[in-house]
Amino acid sequence: MSGLSEFSLIKHYFEKISTPRSDVLLGIGDDCAIVQADTNQQIAISVDTLVEGVHFLPNADPENLGHKSLAVSLSDLAAIGATPAWFTLALTLPEVKEPWLAGFAKGLATLAKQHQIALIGGDTTRGPLSITIQVNGFVKSEQALRRDGAHVGDNIYVSGTVGDAGAGLKLKQNQLLAQQDKQLQEAFLQQRLDKPTPKVDLGRDLRGIANSAIDISDGLVADLSHILEKSQVGADIELEALPVSSALADTVSREHAEQLALYAGDDYELCFTAPPEKHAELRKIKDSYTKIGTITGNPNKMVFYRGGQQIELTGKGYEHFSIED
Amino acid sequence: MSGLSEFSLIKHYFEKISTPRSDVLLGIGDDCAIVQADTNQQIAISVDTLVEGVHFLPNADPENLGHKSLAVSLSDLAAIGATPAWFTLALTLPEVKEPWLAGFAKGLATLAKQHQIALIGGDTTRGPLSITIQVNGFVKSEQALRRDGAHVGDNIYVSGTVGDAGAGLKLKQNQLLAQQDKQLQEAFLQQRLDKPTPKVDLGRDLRGIANSAIDISDGLVADLSHILEKSQVGADIELEALPVSSALADTVSREHAEQLALYAGDDYELCFTAPPEKHAELRKIKDSYTKIGTITGNPNKMVFYRGGQQIELTGKGYEHFSIED
Repeated sequence: MSGLSEFSLIKHYFEKISTPRSDVLLGIGDDCAIVQADTNQQIAISVDTLVEGVHFLPNADPENLGHKSLAVSLSDLAAIGATPAWFTLALTLPEVKEPWLAGFAKGLATLAKQHQIALIGGDTTRGPLSITIQVNGFVKSEQALRRDGAHVGDNIYVSGTVGDAGAGLKLKQNQLLAQQDKQLQEAFLQQRLDKPTPKVDLGRDLRGIANSAIDISDGLVADLSHILEKSQVGADIELEALPVSSALADTVSREHAEQLALYAGDDYELCFTAPPEKHAELRKIKDSYTKIGTITGNPNKMVFYRGGQQIELTGKGYEHFSIED
Repeated sequence: MSGLSEFSLIKHYFEKISTPRSDVLLGIGDDCAIVQADTNQQIAISVDTLVEGVHFLPNADPENLGHKSLAVSLSDLAAIGATPAWFTLALTLPEVKEPWLAGFAKGLATLAKQHQIALIGGDTTRGPLSITIQVNGFVKSEQALRRDGAHVGDNIYVSGTVGDAGAGLKLKQNQLLAQQDKQLQEAFLQQRLDKPTPKVDLGRDLRGIANSAIDISDGLVADLSHILEKSQVGADIELEALPVSSALADTVSREHAEQLALYAGDDYELCFTAPPEKHAELRKIKDSYTKIGTITGNPNKMVFYRGGQQIELTGKGYEHFSIED
């Protein structure tokens, strides 16, 4: 595409990410975007950075990367029960390559369209590859699914299955050996790592039902511990209840699957707590979820059981290098 | 500060950046922040990334860097006439060093407090040093100072003085030789580069007066050309009118000063246009500004004059590597 400057190329691809919304009064192309907030709701805001070599491997597929960059931020909106509205993109690129830009923009645009979220502004700079996306959504503040709302006696739930993305990463890093007859399973696990599905609908459906929620980015234990800390409660966890996909169960032992389910991150499922009396309302929700334990009165204490027997676990989630939690 | 983990250290310093605001319903520490928009106004949003080695020199003073990271984004709010409200910080650090964090947080906090803007969330990741700040402010959309509002016959103004930061950068890079008897002047020029003052009050005062505005980040010619393009107009510029600081005038020739004023960036002054009939209202504004030309009917055409004589200029602003243009 000679004749088009780098700037025009970037503009060309990002103009395609145009989810039309009537509340965007001024979009990309001025000093600021101008948007109109829904006057009956509050605004939920979250920002996430993905750095090459830290959050994704060098030479990651650009379309998956475009998807994942937005997915991890949408997952934060899901975790608080907000409805996506607008986002900005700060993209740092070592060089402008058209195939990369085309793929990245496609992955981003496809997911943005699904969630009716509009790209309203950004900044593109030169430097080591890094992607920062900030999302804005709407939520009524009294309905927000906060980390500090868990109560003693709440059931603890996890959506979908956990540990898949962790196994996908191990496969990519050759820490799990690929097996001839497990190609379908392995493709599923890698897909779970590369193209996570933010549970936006589930987050919205949980408003008024769940007492607390968080999305699983750093691993179930690490993320649930944030709920325990903020709510000043503890948790009893039943290991046999941990929801594991058939792909993961086919690929590793049950014990290994549990380790991944507890400590590996990047699944972007929701972990949430709800009182037993909300059981009937919960059953109406279409997304899948599994009860994995109950909230107890021992602040910050997580106790694990297998078949009613208390179990000592030696694993540990990694320390969260973030000012968010 | 052994005994404090990296995470606690980061938390410790960023919790200090706490401008209290009643419209922040949930701040740092959950999946999202929750804020309440002013229902009578719209929200202006802008994001900027500063990358080490591209936007600032390696080993830049962390306090200045904290100031500048927020200043460049506040300058975008100034350019559109918005009142600052909230910001997020996405910080990528190669390592966690306490003196650096302390200095950076101090520079950021001091400027944030001046403008009553609250840090509501962020993400800290490991990687090559890079800072992305997104600011949110309030503006009534019909009063926003947009790039597309310039009219034929408008006067063109520049606030403060231009070219200072460009000279400051040349001094830092030893492209301008430091002179024994010019230490005060040189300190001023470097300060203009390292700690720019966003013209937030001026932007607000220009609402209802200016037809268009932009902040000068890439140089007067490059930034004014965005107004010309968006407004489909041209500009006659009087070189002798370019406002140059006495420090700059003392340091380089008039011709060199004009080159810096036209093509060097990073001054973060405002360039704006207003119709002649707004002269009396303009005079009430307390910030300094200078008329440098008039808007003409020749789309995208910038013509330079010195003492009534048309001048051919050979310089050119650099291409803006940004989707914001």
